[in-house]
Amino acid sequence: MNWKILAMGKPALPWAREGIDDYLGRCSRYAKVEVEYLKEAPRPQLEERFLKASEGSRRIVLDERGKRLTTQDWHAAVDRWELAGIKRITLIIGGADGHSQALRDTADEIWSLSALTLQHELALVVLLEQLYRVYTIKRGEPYHR
Amino acid sequence: MNWKILAMGKPALPWAREGIDDYLGRCSRYAKVEVEYLKEAPRPQLEERFLKASEGSRRIVLDERGKRLTTQDWHAAVDRWELAGIKRITLIIGGADGHSQALRDTADEIWSLSALTLQHELALVVLLEQLYRVYTIKRGEPYHR
Repeated sequence: MNWKILAMGKPALPWAREGIDDYLGRCSRYAKVEVEYLKEAPRPQLEERFLKASEGSRRIVLDERGKRLTTQDWHAAVDRWELAGIKRITLIIGGADGHSQALRDTADEIWSLSALTLQHELALVVLLEQLYRVYTIKRGEPYHR
Repeated sequence: MNWKILAMGKPALPWAREGIDDYLGRCSRYAKVEVEYLKEAPRPQLEERFLKASEGSRRIVLDERGKRLTTQDWHAAVDRWELAGIKRITLIIGGADGHSQALRDTADEIWSLSALTLQHELALVVLLEQLYRVYTIKRGEPYHR
């Protein structure tokens, strides 16, 4: 599976950068996972770039109003996609203003990491940790804390 | 307000330790917030220590099956407690096995940070970021990313 995560602006918090790198490294054993940081821009331009960068892939928009899935639900979704021969997934993390309805309308899925508003660099760490967790469950491997 | 957060075992991930320290520093401008790391132990002993360490305070148990509050809900809860003269809040983060029903029964509130299972050190960062966020909202201050 090829995972692309789109986020706005490079992470500024040093510990968040390290957390992101930690989980990217862990995930690399299971799948191709990359994070693409788009340059900060007003929402319409940013969302146009989100659309372009996710063309031809399953588009998952992350939004605190989205579906609140459990880890098992994520696992089941990944299994479904694999069975359906879907190979490219793009996950989109919004900026501080969230996503427009227009972008939400183009999404294949709208998922929520938490009902809480999370700082977007922290949301990225949470997302990557979840990917790592899903793959360890899929492989029946121990979760290394 | 005095916040005590109880967690099991000192954080082992360097970036999580830094994230925790980052938000503890930010929160210290608004309230007394401390994290107490209890020694790893089998659940019954650990939970006994959780109970002892949270005596005389409002006891909030964090559990992925708990109420999925928004940031605004957290804010409203803090306002309610302040009005009610409640001065001590303890938040309890479980270990890898979650909490027993017995501990859940003693809780004043059971809240969920996310429907997703989060690594507990990461959960601690999410929790502290949320406290910082709530206080910036309360004070009408900008959220510094």
